[in-house]
Amino acid sequence: MAIDARKPASNADVRRLKILDAAARQFDEVGYHNTSMNAIAAASGIRKPTLYHYFTSKTEILLGVHDVLIDHMLEMHQEVADSSDLTPSQKIYEIIRDILSLQITHRGYVKAYVENTGELTTEMRRDVNRRRRRYQDLLRQVLQSGIDGGQFRETNAELTAIAIFGMVNWGYQWYGRGDYLPLETVATHFHDLVMSGLSPR
Amino acid sequence: MAIDARKPASNADVRRLKILDAAARQFDEVGYHNTSMNAIAAASGIRKPTLYHYFTSKTEILLGVHDVLIDHMLEMHQEVADSSDLTPSQKIYEIIRDILSLQITHRGYVKAYVENTGELTTEMRRDVNRRRRRYQDLLRQVLQSGIDGGQFRETNAELTAIAIFGMVNWGYQWYGRGDYLPLETVATHFHDLVMSGLSPR
Repeated sequence: MAIDARKPASNADVRRLKILDAAARQFDEVGYHNTSMNAIAAASGIRKPTLYHYFTSKTEILLGVHDVLIDHMLEMHQEVADSSDLTPSQKIYEIIRDILSLQITHRGYVKAYVENTGELTTEMRRDVNRRRRRYQDLLRQVLQSGIDGGQFRETNAELTAIAIFGMVNWGYQWYGRGDYLPLETVATHFHDLVMSGLSPR
Repeated sequence: MAIDARKPASNADVRRLKILDAAARQFDEVGYHNTSMNAIAAASGIRKPTLYHYFTSKTEILLGVHDVLIDHMLEMHQEVADSSDLTPSQKIYEIIRDILSLQITHRGYVKAYVENTGELTTEMRRDVNRRRRRYQDLLRQVLQSGIDGGQFRETNAELTAIAIFGMVNWGYQWYGRGDYLPLETVATHFHDLVMSGLSPR
C-alpha cells in the first residue's frame, strides 16, 4: 500500500497534503530550522493567509509531517502484522521494503521524523512517541510470533526489532537521493541478512 | 581505546576540548540551532573573547565536534582492522561496541554528527564526508576479508557494512540516555545477529 493510495477525502485535505509535501521538501533541502512559513507558502503555491488557515505555526506543520508518516506506518504495518497469508519472514520483508520505499517517496518526511521530533511541543511529542511505540511494537510482535512458532531461533525480539529499524531507518542518510540501488536489491539484502541471522541453529 | 585515552597535548588542546564538550552537551540538550555562542561560553566556563580566540563561529565548533568523533573512529577502527590478533568476527564486535559506547560517552557529538553535518560549509562538509567514507570503508574491508577467508558467506560487503552502521548508529535515538541496557548486552546481541546472518550456509 503506497501512502498515496490513501485518497484525501476533501479539498481541504488535498490542500493540507499539498502544504505538507512542500514543507517536507523544504525541510529536506535546507533543513527544518532554515525553512520559513514564507518559503512554505511559496513552495506550495498557496497564499500566506490561506497557509495560516490550515496551520497556525511551523510546529503544527512539523506535527502534520509526523502524522502523515506515522499514520501510514501504523496502518500499513498493522495490515501486514495481521495478515494470515504471510509468514513472519514475509511480514518482515514487507516492513523493511515499506520503510525503505518511504525514503524515496517521502525523504523530507523521514528526515524531519528522525531529526526534528525534539522541536515539537511537549504534548505533541508525547503523542508522537506513543504512536511511534505502537508501530514499533508491531515488528516486535511479528518477530516474537516467528520465535514462538519455531521459524526463528530463540532471541530477544525487542533488540532485534531495534536492529532492523536501525538498519532501514538509517537509509535516509544514504539511500534515495539521486542514483540509488533498486529498492528490491536493498530490501532483499537486509531481509536476507536478518533472516539468516534468525534461522534456527 | 577510549576517546579520553588520547591525551590532549597542550593547555590549548585541553581548553578546546572543554569547549567542544560543553557545546556537544548543549547540542544534545536543546539542539544545534537553539544553542548560542553565549550558551557555549557559559556552559564551558570560558569568557566569550577567549571562546572566540579558539573558535570564530558556531560552525567551527560544529566542525570541531565532527573532528573529535571522526578522528577517534578512524584511529580506533584502523587499529582494529589492522590487528593480526583478532578474527574478522572479533573485529566487527570491537567496531560495534565502540560506536555504541560513543552513544553513552559522546551523545551530543554523535547527534550533531548524524543530524547537523548539513550545517557545515561546503568545504568542511566535503572534508568530513571524505573522512567518513574512509572509516566506513574499514568495516567494509573487514567484512570482505571474512568473505574472502571463508569465515563469512558470499555476500555484498558494502550493503552489509551499511546495515551494521545503521543498526549501531541508530542507537543515538534510543540508547545511552538514563536507564539503559549494559553496553555488552546490546553489542553482543547485534554482533550475534550479524554473525549468524553471515555464517556460511
